[in-house]
Amino acid sequence: MKKYTEMTMDELKQELESVKSEYGKIKEMGLNLNIARGKPGKEQLDLVSDIFDILPSTSDFMVGPDDVRNYGVMSGIEPAKVLFADILGTKPENIFVGGNASLQLMYDTIAKAYTHGMLHSDKPWGKLDKVKWICPVPGYDRHFSICQSFGMETINVPMGETGPDMDMVEELIKDPQVKGMWNVPKYSNPDGIIYSAETLERIAGMKPAAKDFLLMWDNAYVIHEFDGDYVPFPDILSLCEKAGNPDMVFEYASTSKVTLPGAGVAVFACSKANMEYMESLITIQAISFDKTNQLRHAIYLKDKAHTLELMKKHAGILGPKFKTVLNTLEKEIEPLGIATWQKPKGGYFVSINCLPGTAKETWRLCKEAGLVMTGAGATYPGGNDPEDSNLRIAPSLPAPEVVEQAMKVFCVCLKHAALEKLMK
Amino acid sequence: MKKYTEMTMDELKQELESVKSEYGKIKEMGLNLNIARGKPGKEQLDLVSDIFDILPSTSDFMVGPDDVRNYGVMSGIEPAKVLFADILGTKPENIFVGGNASLQLMYDTIAKAYTHGMLHSDKPWGKLDKVKWICPVPGYDRHFSICQSFGMETINVPMGETGPDMDMVEELIKDPQVKGMWNVPKYSNPDGIIYSAETLERIAGMKPAAKDFLLMWDNAYVIHEFDGDYVPFPDILSLCEKAGNPDMVFEYASTSKVTLPGAGVAVFACSKANMEYMESLITIQAISFDKTNQLRHAIYLKDKAHTLELMKKHAGILGPKFKTVLNTLEKEIEPLGIATWQKPKGGYFVSINCLPGTAKETWRLCKEAGLVMTGAGATYPGGNDPEDSNLRIAPSLPAPEVVEQAMKVFCVCLKHAALEKLMK
Repeated sequence: MKKYTEMTMDELKQELESVKSEYGKIKEMGLNLNIARGKPGKEQLDLVSDIFDILPSTSDFMVGPDDVRNYGVMSGIEPAKVLFADILGTKPENIFVGGNASLQLMYDTIAKAYTHGMLHSDKPWGKLDKVKWICPVPGYDRHFSICQSFGMETINVPMGETGPDMDMVEELIKDPQVKGMWNVPKYSNPDGIIYSAETLERIAGMKPAAKDFLLMWDNAYVIHEFDGDYVPFPDILSLCEKAGNPDMVFEYASTSKVTLPGAGVAVFACSKANMEYMESLITIQAISFDKTNQLRHAIYLKDKAHTLELMKKHAGILGPKFKTVLNTLEKEIEPLGIATWQKPKGGYFVSINCLPGTAKETWRLCKEAGLVMTGAGATYPGGNDPEDSNLRIAPSLPAPEVVEQAMKVFCVCLKHAALEKLMK
Repeated sequence: MKKYTEMTMDELKQELESVKSEYGKIKEMGLNLNIARGKPGKEQLDLVSDIFDILPSTSDFMVGPDDVRNYGVMSGIEPAKVLFADILGTKPENIFVGGNASLQLMYDTIAKAYTHGMLHSDKPWGKLDKVKWICPVPGYDRHFSICQSFGMETINVPMGETGPDMDMVEELIKDPQVKGMWNVPKYSNPDGIIYSAETLERIAGMKPAAKDFLLMWDNAYVIHEFDGDYVPFPDILSLCEKAGNPDMVFEYASTSKVTLPGAGVAVFACSKANMEYMESLITIQAISFDKTNQLRHAIYLKDKAHTLELMKKHAGILGPKFKTVLNTLEKEIEPLGIATWQKPKGGYFVSINCLPGTAKETWRLCKEAGLVMTGAGATYPGGNDPEDSNLRIAPSLPAPEVVEQAMKVFCVCLKHAALEKLMK
């Protein structure tokens, strides 16, 4: 197949005829497909639902002197801290075990920066005229929504194959109004990029003008390989500490995609000084989180090694879906020169960079043909993708045959939009 | 027995000798007793731990089209909304089902007022020079800690037998800087007072100068009778709506003392307009709370009638402990004229008003004798009881025989402090 970008106008016209005919047939099928959100599929949920057999049979509810059913033990039970410390490569005393969602913990950290200030803040951010924030793009829409909700000025920094453009980041942090930065360092959402050792070192060694700079480290996919073995990843807390920045980073993780998204356990990890400060604030807000669920998880997941075995089972379900996505793209799109993408081995997404000015149109064509995708632009702050070129594919929720059909529809729509663009 | 307040100096001296001797004997016993916090006892926790048998055996995890194990359904599953609406006397659409603790929901409402403002705010409270807050006293220490944490100026309003002094409240709300008010309207913490119908009407009909006035309605003990039948209590949302103040009130409740403090379900209730506004903010913060726990609770508690049956069983455990407290006070203290207290039939506390200037000393004497009580002053904002006269007794956690012993110690210490005060 000839690349679209090298076709003559006549060839483009002829190809569009053919693609239009395919698209027409798809529309007639009256499909109703959805690859919009990174939700685990039913098979994955069923895989781990024996977690509900854990209590009370296996346990007597006591952890040391504490009854997990009662009030208290605000920062989480020790066995849950030990488990997450093992997974993240840090120490149990650096772990705060919260409720069921890391998003809530991330939001809460930023909310506290606004209402009370961070450990090294001169005053609450709510008293500042302006807060600027570094957003590697494409990125996670819910991160960016938090920035918007708090009225931050967001600054796009492009992601490359080794992580965010660090030259640009190092320049930006000279501005004291730049107060923080989002990161999904392993299997980034949506590209599936793993930050390189050099990127990690440069990030940990940053010298931001803002002394209360908040490095938000959303390690959502820390053990989430769907293809191949677990890839070790350095502990950012140690790296920051070594670089003289112990209090710069807050790390987040959860079992949302290990056990259950609706009923998992989430944590944040930070330095000892940050932990003392955050606990002094959180003790006003919470007596304790759901420790029965923490105990359930500690017993069910045991330790990192045992959790990695479980992740292999998830990979057994997820892997084929991602294979379908990547194989279809390789077969249908790669020869045409109309899009590029990473080939991730973990995470929950595949991110497509199509011809500038064709993402929205591809999305619209998909929608009209009965395929719902994450909104075009959603991977950029404000939903504003300046090139209109990024689209996110989330194949985890639907059954494999649905993913296959969805990818066929997607490829036809991508071609359709590209051809029309090239003919303008 | 003669009243201490009517004794001659000689009589006081003689009585003090006798009390000191009793106190000395108690100290020698090396006791280690605690009646400080409103935690349910082990027998209560055991009573409801069959709630963990509910999932997955009884349920297939589906509520309508939604799998409770997955992401989504942010405001809570319908069966949980129906249950809480039944208990609170409101409509399911007025209910937001959150995580495991109403304290977190209350904190979050106030945090959102500071970061984003309430529905009728001109700007976030974080941008205001001053926020003042009405605190009925004595009250709940964790409420007051929230005020302190956010730097509010707190204003004490005395509680009477029918609720807070409403003449004073109506005067205070003329000040537009007065932005809200705490309430525990049924079995107030710590007095156990139930707001009267007239108080409720005056509160619902308030016309605060602040159009974003926040009536915080912590209905923590709405079905928590420990002596006698359930006492019906009006729905504050309807009362506020009828009075033309539909958006003034946020109500809170939880199952912390119905099922489990560490693993219950909490809700807030508010008007439709408030709900839309809050959901528009919370959707940035949370994808969903733990819906498996919501389902567990909806199945386990069924409805209000069935929940009230369970509360009778709790009362069977709690009632005797409170009886011990009240009987001991009646026998040992009432004749002496050195303290007054309400005789609550529900809630989790008994609140003692002893002679001005003797609360701290009583507390100190108790502590020295091995009895830990809620700190003297804790029932006032900033821990500052201007009369130094209020003490809170929380008899729920210890075994009945411990409560009996604790009350003996307490009464001796109370007498000791009173005698010394009267002899000055």
